Amino acid sequence: MYRLLKTEGAARRGEFVTVHGTVQTPAFMNVATCGAIKGALSSTDLETINCQVMLSNTYHLHVRPGDKLIKELGGLHKFTGWSGPILTDSGGFQVFSLASLRKIKEEGVSFQSHVDGRHIFMGPEESMQIQSNLGSTIAMAFDECVENPAEYAYAMSSCERTVRWLERCKAEMERLNSLPDTVNKNQLLFGINQGCTYEDLRIENMKQIAALNLDGYAIGGLAVGEPKEDMYRIISAVEPYMPQDKIRYLMGVGTPGNILEAVSRGVDLFDCVMPSRNARHGHLFTKSGIINLNNNKYEKDDSPVDKECGCPVCRKFSRAYIRHLFKAKEMLAMRLCVMHNLYFYNNLMQEIRDSLDSGTFAEYRDRYVDLLDTRI
Amino acid sequence: MYRLLKTEGAARRGEFVTVHGTVQTPAFMNVATCGAIKGALSSTDLETINCQVMLSNTYHLHVRPGDKLIKELGGLHKFTGWSGPILTDSGGFQVFSLASLRKIKEEGVSFQSHVDGRHIFMGPEESMQIQSNLGSTIAMAFDECVENPAEYAYAMSSCERTVRWLERCKAEMERLNSLPDTVNKNQLLFGINQGCTYEDLRIENMKQIAALNLDGYAIGGLAVGEPKEDMYRIISAVEPYMPQDKIRYLMGVGTPGNILEAVSRGVDLFDCVMPSRNARHGHLFTKSGIINLNNNKYEKDDSPVDKECGCPVCRKFSRAYIRHLFKAKEMLAMRLCVMHNLYFYNNLMQEIRDSLDSGTFAEYRDRYVDLLDTRI
Repeated sequence: MYRLLKTEGAARRGEFVTVHGTVQTPAFMNVATCGAIKGALSSTDLETINCQVMLSNTYHLHVRPGDKLIKELGGLHKFTGWSGPILTDSGGFQVFSLASLRKIKEEGVSFQSHVDGRHIFMGPEESMQIQSNLGSTIAMAFDECVENPAEYAYAMSSCERTVRWLERCKAEMERLNSLPDTVNKNQLLFGINQGCTYEDLRIENMKQIAALNLDGYAIGGLAVGEPKEDMYRIISAVEPYMPQDKIRYLMGVGTPGNILEAVSRGVDLFDCVMPSRNARHGHLFTKSGIINLNNNKYEKDDSPVDKECGCPVCRKFSRAYIRHLFKAKEMLAMRLCVMHNLYFYNNLMQEIRDSLDSGTFAEYRDRYVDLLDTRI
Repeated sequence: MYRLLKTEGAARRGEFVTVHGTVQTPAFMNVATCGAIKGALSSTDLETINCQVMLSNTYHLHVRPGDKLIKELGGLHKFTGWSGPILTDSGGFQVFSLASLRKIKEEGVSFQSHVDGRHIFMGPEESMQIQSNLGSTIAMAFDECVENPAEYAYAMSSCERTVRWLERCKAEMERLNSLPDTVNKNQLLFGINQGCTYEDLRIENMKQIAALNLDGYAIGGLAVGEPKEDMYRIISAVEPYMPQDKIRYLMGVGTPGNILEAVSRGVDLFDCVMPSRNARHGHLFTKSGIINLNNNKYEKDDSPVDKECGCPVCRKFSRAYIRHLFKAKEMLAMRLCVMHNLYFYNNLMQEIRDSLDSGTFAEYRDRYVDLLDTRI
């Protein structure tokens, strides 16, 4: 249940109550694709970096180790040791980006696994069944993520099919939640807005899925290569048609600047692999911009990654030490950098919430929207 | 300063007082070759797994990032964030096992770096200077680690040279400790007993190095491929000639069974890469023997790695989850397994000390000496 606490312009300060805990929003979800954060972070570390929501991937876990195995072991919470809210994506995005020999029909999609090549069929029902087996807090609707740019006609017919799929998702989730051996009988379902960069398609689609009265709404199909101005334009166009009393999630976004812009347009939830992926290459977020630890100038730099950061890495280790770990190919380099970057993101959201609480979000956004994305 | 607290047969319960803290012995030293434990463990994690002494490699740190850089940054303690005792090896073993184009002369050894191929000369003075720059708690003497099996004549001449090198190490360490800008003016120096598997050479060498009144004595050149009976025989032969009032370190050993046998022969300190290396392949120590997590039978096993273990991994994660992480090639798999195996080793030493305190070491050894090394 989403509770709107305060607004500043279109920006929303709220909270989202689930059976696995209450999420203070705006919030960033930390990506644990296969049930673990890349860079050797465990569910214990998620607490250390102030993670509120863990995000895992339906497609990856279905392929390996298998959602039925995870259900047998008590669900994804017990399996990973993370007791807070978990969002699972629907598998749709991975089916359309990772798998091969893909065929889309009204029933769903058939494709080959990227791990072992076996043939898999996934439609709305299968996606809900897998997510029900995982027992996540929030399941995402099974949708087609159309590539950008797309023809208007294809985008429209894909949107219409995705709405029909969404109705099937809703019915199947209601059925699964009522079964006696379901892992999480309170599993929530979010719908996903699609329509590429066509505002009229986006709005029409949003109206249709809003009518289904789901637990939350995501904007999908953005941050897939289009200019960021297009992304902001679409969010602004769709936002007035998103229910005020439901949480809103912008999928796969983004840089700190993207997040600040999206919050100011009324978005509550985010996820992105960028902070952990950048970290693994030594690119670290600081309050002064992005630094690259591979740079020679950090060789003897005994200051922390970010003097203003309170994360366990910045409290103990120097730029010189972490740079050495990268050069020596020590796994610890990646772990420390991923910890820092994810803490930075979770802390950014905390500061956004604080600024909304105190009515100073616009100042905060203006101060950091370009600065945090700048490579220094 | 070593203080002998209690004995049981030849086994010794003691403590070793250093400027970086007191080590309860027998103890296992945790190997951080390049200033970090393989498997993404930081100095913070060393506290979690009850590590008493961190061991780092002189050769590796000299080559990268350079001991002078580490000195500039305040020494290895400040660099790595580990404030407890650190032992550095002399670089001798790596020069003889890793480097190429090696030439041994009375002055020392010239060789090529395994990292960038540059020519390096290292003799007793250079090794002491590097270790002084690192500022470790304990420096090891620069020695030649002769391959097994070796001709008697070569082993003898090598031993004699190593004693001459040791005298130079001692003089150089005294000089370095008296310099105004030395990182650790109380740096200790351990001598290393050599002589391959020849008891008379080992004993004669031990007598010579004992006369130099160093801070501790190591037995080197064992666990390099010889049968374990030879190792035990040599320890038993040399032990009566090792000073009672000095700490004794068996280098590079070994399995839990090896350690139990060596403690019962009067050894106080150990180090070995095996627990972390095994961990990275999913081979885990338990109180019932060694398990291989890659085995299919652990696919749905929701029990901890070792029901009797109190480590952070066994308190939270299942065999099935960790096995999944290995299959999914998640770095977290290695981290969790290394944490468990090192905790297991440090805990083994704690139990050895407890059994010595209560006069039940012989029972403890008999119960576990074969069991812990058995693959189940």
